Amino acid sequence: MRIPFTVMKDEIKRVFLKAGLEEEKAEICAFAHAESSLYGVYSHGLNRVARFVDYIQKGWVDVKAEPSLSLSLGAIEVYDGNRGPGILNAKFATNKAIEVAKKFGIGLVTLKNTTHWMRGGTYGWDAANRGYAAICWTNTESCMPAWGAKNNHVGNNPFVMALPRENGNIVLDMAMSQFSYGKLQVTRLKNEKLPVMGGYDKSGTLTDIPGLIEESMRILPMGYWKGSGFSILLDAMAAILSDGLSTVEIDKVQAGSCGGCSQVFMVINPSALSNKTFVENTLNDVVEYVKASTPTTDDGEIYYPGELAAKTCRENKEKGIPVDEMVWNEILAL
Amino acid sequence: MRIPFTVMKDEIKRVFLKAGLEEEKAEICAFAHAESSLYGVYSHGLNRVARFVDYIQKGWVDVKAEPSLSLSLGAIEVYDGNRGPGILNAKFATNKAIEVAKKFGIGLVTLKNTTHWMRGGTYGWDAANRGYAAICWTNTESCMPAWGAKNNHVGNNPFVMALPRENGNIVLDMAMSQFSYGKLQVTRLKNEKLPVMGGYDKSGTLTDIPGLIEESMRILPMGYWKGSGFSILLDAMAAILSDGLSTVEIDKVQAGSCGGCSQVFMVINPSALSNKTFVENTLNDVVEYVKASTPTTDDGEIYYPGELAAKTCRENKEKGIPVDEMVWNEILAL
Repeated sequence: MRIPFTVMKDEIKRVFLKAGLEEEKAEICAFAHAESSLYGVYSHGLNRVARFVDYIQKGWVDVKAEPSLSLSLGAIEVYDGNRGPGILNAKFATNKAIEVAKKFGIGLVTLKNTTHWMRGGTYGWDAANRGYAAICWTNTESCMPAWGAKNNHVGNNPFVMALPRENGNIVLDMAMSQFSYGKLQVTRLKNEKLPVMGGYDKSGTLTDIPGLIEESMRILPMGYWKGSGFSILLDAMAAILSDGLSTVEIDKVQAGSCGGCSQVFMVINPSALSNKTFVENTLNDVVEYVKASTPTTDDGEIYYPGELAAKTCRENKEKGIPVDEMVWNEILAL
Repeated sequence: MRIPFTVMKDEIKRVFLKAGLEEEKAEICAFAHAESSLYGVYSHGLNRVARFVDYIQKGWVDVKAEPSLSLSLGAIEVYDGNRGPGILNAKFATNKAIEVAKKFGIGLVTLKNTTHWMRGGTYGWDAANRGYAAICWTNTESCMPAWGAKNNHVGNNPFVMALPRENGNIVLDMAMSQFSYGKLQVTRLKNEKLPVMGGYDKSGTLTDIPGLIEESMRILPMGYWKGSGFSILLDAMAAILSDGLSTVEIDKVQAGSCGGCSQVFMVINPSALSNKTFVENTLNDVVEYVKASTPTTDDGEIYYPGELAAKTCRENKEKGIPVDEMVWNEILAL
């Protein structure tokens, strides 16, 4: 079943209006959720709408809250998200970072005390679409074991890097685990194995069988010790730069996924640093060199970061966005 | 065989003076090489001295060159490294970024047209030791296949994040491949297997046998597609921010590893953002939470990023730095 973007966006907006969001805020949030589905990140698009509404009803997200300035240092601004909707806070921070970057070449805007920003890529794509480079990340509650550990004391801390390019932005949007729990579930339901090892079973053996990892909750950091270490630094840096909470403190807040989390939005104006032709040529060269690699299979193709997301976006715009009928009916009933 | 730090530093300095470096520059470079060995990164410490001298002799590194300002935008400064010694350029850039961060809270200094910075961690530890947070990276010549590719069109692009902490800085210093070629060699010479899959053999099968990966030159990006994508973004971003070369252009330069590369030094002054007690408490909490994880083995211990490097540093300070006798004799003969 496929649903056109506008139909999906309008339906989500209806739900958000009913949940107490003001007109403009409902529009922005609904657009971001529908856009995530449009780009193929269904887990943080339509499929996340019901949970967001649940968080509002539980008082974990305050639909009336607005970000307030905590500190301004010229090229740096720190805001308190006041537990408002994560998408609105993150969009606000991206806009502010772009404003600051217009003045100083670079803008660092951080958010403390915010809530789940949904798809991290939203803010990278947004900045890139407007001609800016961006590096953004968030910390999260703990949901992954540190390297060498059995239990979860490390967040999954999505990390985004984005560069604007006329023939397709280059955008990396990655979490710190090799696979998300969403991917484990989808793969298990298909009775398939993961393409590579994704975690440990209860006995501590590496496995590519998703159900065994869901049972042990021992998902693997990407690159083993590397993703574990990267995640720890992203967490600590986000807390320090925003004067906000780190993973251990978020765990204590107990207000759903990412309740009270800390986020970083770094935006750079590439045209302040070099001329447009250089930027365009350099990024085209990077893309062409990657794509000119010899594929491992005869019919293989090498993709640059963001290429597949853009392809999915085009397809879903044309054919409609694939939705799970059960999820869609659940939204209609909200 | 173990050599005291000062003996090693003085011997390297003698070699660098002979290679044409001025007194102060020889001291800084020798210190950085010896310090890398002190911290256990032997591959970019003593073991890299001969290759650096070779690069000077081949004209790939200009010992007389100094960085020159290309662009100043307040919180951003761009320098041309003029192919001077990579350590001197990177130290210069770190110092400049700290100066800028003192004024603006954040300082972004980039280097184009520089040469190999040796151990990336040098600059992160340096900033953290002086009370600053840092994010630094470099691009490199291609030496790793992109995800889905057989041949090497992607750099290994080391990435560093550092945070200052009284009881031990938190420092991540990682390259984008799961294992370095140095690690493959050491493991092969011991007739051992890698702890996890490290690349492909010539037939395209994932393997943990180091010799087979050295043969195919198909080392694995950390986290498979994730490390590949991250590497591409680090390359493109470094080139754009420095108005410098990307991996494809560095490949054309043909002036040794990292000849003409682009580097990014981002420094943030944490005490401009929050008070010292908050920073110290937050970082202690992060470290304690990670270390309070349940280890996978009874005698296991969970380390935070930088902890093992600091431990090695303390041991090597006390007992002397382990050196390969052949390498040491080679240095003595230079």
